[in-house]
This record gives sequence, structure tokens and C-alpha cells, in this order.
Amino acid sequence: MDYAGRQRRLRQLLEKNRLDAILVTHPPNVRYLCGFTGSAAVLVVSARRNLFFTDGRYTEQGKQQVEGARIVIAKGSALASGMKALAAMGEASVGIEAEHTTVALHALVRKTVPKAVKLRATSGLVEQLRLIKDAEELALIRQAVIAGAAPLKAVLKAIRPGVTELRVAAEIEFAAREHGATGMSFETIVASGARSALPHGVATAQLIPAKGFVVLDFGVILHGYCSDMTRTVHVGRGAKADRDLYHAVLEAQMAAIAVVAPGVELHQVDAAARSVLRKAKLDKYFTHSTGHGVGLEIHEAPRVARAQRQQLQPGMVITIEPGVYLPGRGGVRIEDMVAVTESGCEALTPASKEWFEL
Amino acid sequence: MDYAGRQRRLRQLLEKNRLDAILVTHPPNVRYLCGFTGSAAVLVVSARRNLFFTDGRYTEQGKQQVEGARIVIAKGSALASGMKALAAMGEASVGIEAEHTTVALHALVRKTVPKAVKLRATSGLVEQLRLIKDAEELALIRQAVIAGAAPLKAVLKAIRPGVTELRVAAEIEFAAREHGATGMSFETIVASGARSALPHGVATAQLIPAKGFVVLDFGVILHGYCSDMTRTVHVGRGAKADRDLYHAVLEAQMAAIAVVAPGVELHQVDAAARSVLRKAKLDKYFTHSTGHGVGLEIHEAPRVARAQRQQLQPGMVITIEPGVYLPGRGGVRIEDMVAVTESGCEALTPASKEWFEL
Repeated sequence: MDYAGRQRRLRQLLEKNRLDAILVTHPPNVRYLCGFTGSAAVLVVSARRNLFFTDGRYTEQGKQQVEGARIVIAKGSALASGMKALAAMGEASVGIEAEHTTVALHALVRKTVPKAVKLRATSGLVEQLRLIKDAEELALIRQAVIAGAAPLKAVLKAIRPGVTELRVAAEIEFAAREHGATGMSFETIVASGARSALPHGVATAQLIPAKGFVVLDFGVILHGYCSDMTRTVHVGRGAKADRDLYHAVLEAQMAAIAVVAPGVELHQVDAAARSVLRKAKLDKYFTHSTGHGVGLEIHEAPRVARAQRQQLQPGMVITIEPGVYLPGRGGVRIEDMVAVTESGCEALTPASKEWFEL
Repeated sequence: MDYAGRQRRLRQLLEKNRLDAILVTHPPNVRYLCGFTGSAAVLVVSARRNLFFTDGRYTEQGKQQVEGARIVIAKGSALASGMKALAAMGEASVGIEAEHTTVALHALVRKTVPKAVKLRATSGLVEQLRLIKDAEELALIRQAVIAGAAPLKAVLKAIRPGVTELRVAAEIEFAAREHGATGMSFETIVASGARSALPHGVATAQLIPAKGFVVLDFGVILHGYCSDMTRTVHVGRGAKADRDLYHAVLEAQMAAIAVVAPGVELHQVDAAARSVLRKAKLDKYFTHSTGHGVGLEIHEAPRVARAQRQQLQPGMVITIEPGVYLPGRGGVRIEDMVAVTESGCEALTPASKEWFEL
């Protein structure tokens, strides 16, 4: 990974924001900048040097993973040690990550570093860099998405009336592990029958009914990168209305993917999905946004939603996941991950979206 | 659940802290106070009324779950809606959760509510209540711990030289789901051979070696409550030194459990484990604290560690998990959950701690 390049680009952002240093505490940001995958670490990046702090549990791991920063093993907490070093560094103006620093931590930092040091809340500096995935990241994301789609085959065999949603989730997660996942990227959603109308219907002890939709929304973590996909299948023979509902969502999803290209504004992607559903008089049942960025975190920038005027750029990776939820009846959601390319987009998720009856 | 009692006790804490209201944003705290299990919600508790804010995705779930607060479905974000309501409520002094409110969110709240409203950072108010589990919570925690221990039997069959740690994790998680788990409470640790010397050795593609320790540290979430346990087994015939190492850790763990009782200070529990290991000249390889509280979160108050002078009280639930890690050679950790009772403690984890060779 190009840690040196990332650190250099962050230093450029510091300069642009008139900061001498930044205290990076958000674990995905620490990982992005220096490669450390553990949970307890602090990275100080300044124009002159980079210092990485962790505690005794991570001595070995720190040595193996961290690039481009001097490693300091703290006697107590990584944070306390990092702050002490920061206090001694003599930087005049230090950024703290506003979205990841709690009020309590901010107070502690303020108490620890000399009054002369100006603390400035920064917003999304590292996230700005993370927004555009480089070639190595894209390769890892492709792997994660492939491993993340692999469970689908096994799970379609496991779904039948009378098994619990939990059992279906178990099959998904077992298959994910078999394909190398180090974990799931979020709580697996298996929402069957009337529960499919819940956009966040995590698997429960409810039995798969004899007839109805089953929404499967799951993702894995592989080499630190997240995958995210949703498929909706129908148990038993679907009525025409069910098929129509399914195909309206599929059409909306494909319409949104079709407009993904550099220069397009995010709200336009959202609007593409919404406009298909409006024609089918289903838009008021599409109660969430169309998608979100994915990378080291399952939800990261950008948001594919109304009023988001940011332009798509090559290297962004987003989900496209419209859904329609009819209270009491059921719901359908279909989700793929796509990477923005120079000329359009690359659909990453290798799985059929055909109507599927079990 | 006694949501009314919890809300009443929180109002008493507000009064004691001279606060008119508190903005609760930390999801486990929201759940604890009103029963809502979703992710996007804000609860305002004041002397006069309680308001619960969520967004359109959780309309149904909010109605089904929330007790003791008026439900407001936000047009936009739950937070924005909550802040607007707070601005209109006319409370003079409002608490925000210092450990869970980011600098960015604090700035937003400050901008939204009138200048006349005094915002005060509060520390662990709801956590103070959560520290002592009531009978209903203890019943759920017992269930979680039983479901969390259930995978052990299957996994002991799955561990053999040549299978990957990932496969072993897959078996643990599959069995957990079969016992009703809605998820794992943290990334499953399967650390074999030399990797067992890593206190946080999450499962990797490494193959279980022909000989050596395997540390298994895993937990489930059931009805919202977390379990946490560790067992260490030995693949192949262990040398006397391995058995001695194992039994030293076991003795330390049991010594710590033996002192758990109301009135005992937390550092004394930590010291009980450490002193056994000191006699075996292993204390310098015990590089972390002895345990932590468990409940709606996998890590919560109290900390069972040096210099923690807080006294144990009936209803506290903690882990006891000393470990010894010999770099390059291997490590052993043994962990149970215990509940503090009126007279001592109840060991919750139903699993043998005997030396186990595979």
C-alpha cells in the first residue's frame, strides 16, 4: 500500500488548512495512513515527523505493520502517550478529528497539551483521501466483493419454509468464513414475509413462511475492506403483483447504475432510481437513500442521496440499493457495489439479479 | 424491562447534577432507557417529559419498542429533529454525553439550541445506572452466556492440525447462530501456535499447527446482551512446561474469581490474579488488565485493573480473564463471566476449564 503517498497527501492537506500536525484517532484512518490494523492506536502526523503510539498488547503487531512512522509503545494508554509526545513536540496548531473525537477526549487533550498549542477541529481530512480508492485498494475491494457474494449459492439452498432466519444467517456467515472473511461488515439481514418490509430486518428466530419475499443483505470484511450486497428472493410462487414490485425495484436499481459516471452529481444517481419508482407509484415506499460509499468502513463517504451535489470521481466506490417497503405486505431491495471508472462505472457484485422463486 | 424505573433514576441523577434535561445519543444508552434496538435514534429525557426521535426507517419498530417517551418520526435525521425539539423546550441546562458526543456533534447542537441553553458535558450518567444489572437483565445475560458457551463443544471437534483458524471461527459462529445469537459480540479470536502469544489474535488463514496452544476467545449477542469467554486448548501432547503454564493461568483466574464479592475493590481482584502469576514468575507476561464489565456492550464499566478503587456491588457483571503471552512460544488465556451477588459471586460461564489436549 502507498502509505508514503497517503501521508504526503495528508501533509499537503495540513498545510492547506494551516495546521502543523494532526492527531489521528479513528482506527480506519490510522490503518489507512500507516497500515496498523489493531484497535488501540494513535497516529500523529506532522510536517516534520510521524509518530505512532500503541500499547503493550500490540508491540509485535505494530512492528510488523506500521509504515512511515516511528513506533512508540506506551506504558499506559496509547492516547495518553500520544498526547504527552504532542505536548512536547512544540507544534503551534494541531488538528483533531471532529467527527471521531469525543467531547471527553477533546477536554483531555486540551488539559494535556500546553495552552500555547491551538487545537482545531478538522472535518474529514483523512476521509477526503479515502474517498478515492487507488488501484491496490480497488483490487482488495474486488476480492472482498467476490468473497461477499460467494455465500449466496449456499444460502439459496438453505432457504425453505420452516427454517429460522437465524439459520439462514448462519449459513451465509459460515460460507463467508469459508471464503476467507475475517468477519461480517454488519449484522446480517434476513427479513422474511411481512418482515421484509423492515429496511433493517436483522435475522430473528422467525420461521421462513411458505410464501413471501426474503430480503438478504450481508457483507464481509476481507483484508480490511468491506463488501455489501442485497438480494431479494421469493419463497413459493409469486403473484403478478409481487413480480411487478420486484421488477420495478430492479429497473430502478439498474437505472441508477446506468447514470454512474465521473462528473455526475450524487443526487442525480439517487433521482434516477427514484424516478423509475415514481412512474410505478412506488416512490413513497422508497424510504431511504440510494446508496453510500464503502471501503475500510461499511458506511463512508459519499452519500448517494437527495441534495448531495458532490460529483462522482474515478476511484469512488458506492452501493446502489433502492428498496420498496409495503407495510404489512413485504419489501424488495436489490443492492450492488460499483466503482466509478474514467468512463462510467464497473459493477463489482458478481451475482444474478433475476427474479428467483424457491 | 423496568424502563420507567430507569428513566426515574436518570431524572434523579439529572436533578443531582443540576440538569434540566439530557440528550442521549449513544445507542446502548437509548436502548437501556426506552427499549429501542435500532441504530438511529435520539432520546431527550427531562424532568417534565421524554421525547424519542427516529427516522422513517424505524417508524414501525419505534412504535413496537419504545416505552416511556413520546415518539417523533423525523422528516430528516433523528438528531436534527431532536435538537429542534430541544431548542423549543426551553430547558435552561442540558447534558450531553461527553464520552459519546463528538466535537462535530457538539458544535452542531451548540449552533442549533438557543444561546440561553447551557450545554454541559456529562460523564457516564446512564452508564452509572447500567453498572448494576437488575434481575431481568441478569436473566438475559445468563441466557447470552449459555448460548455463548454452546459453540465450544462443536469447535473442539473442528480443531485439528491443517484446518485454518478461519474455519474454526466459522464453526464457532455457526453454532452460535444455531443457539439463537443475533450476532457475535466481537471479532472471534482463534490464535494458534506462536500466534497464541498475541492477546488479540483474530482468526486468520493460518493453519492449526501439529502442536501448540489454541486460544479461543468469542462471544455472542442474544436479546441485546453480550457474552464473552476464552478457553485455551493444546493441540498434540503438551510438554510439562505447557501444562505448568496453563495451570498457572488457571490458578490465577480462579484466585481472582475467589475474591469477587461486594465491597471488594476492583484493583484487589486484579491483584489476586497478578500475585499468583508473580509467584510463577509469569506476571511480566500478563500484559493486560484482568477484566471488564459486560452488558449491552462487550466492554463497559467497571474496569478490573490496577488502581481501580471502585468497590464491587451486587448486580455488577464482569469478566475475569488473565493471560500469559510468551513471545515466539505461545500464550494461554482463560476467561469467564461472573455476576457479583449479595454474598460473593455467581460464575456464569458453563464450560470446563480443565487442561484439554486434542
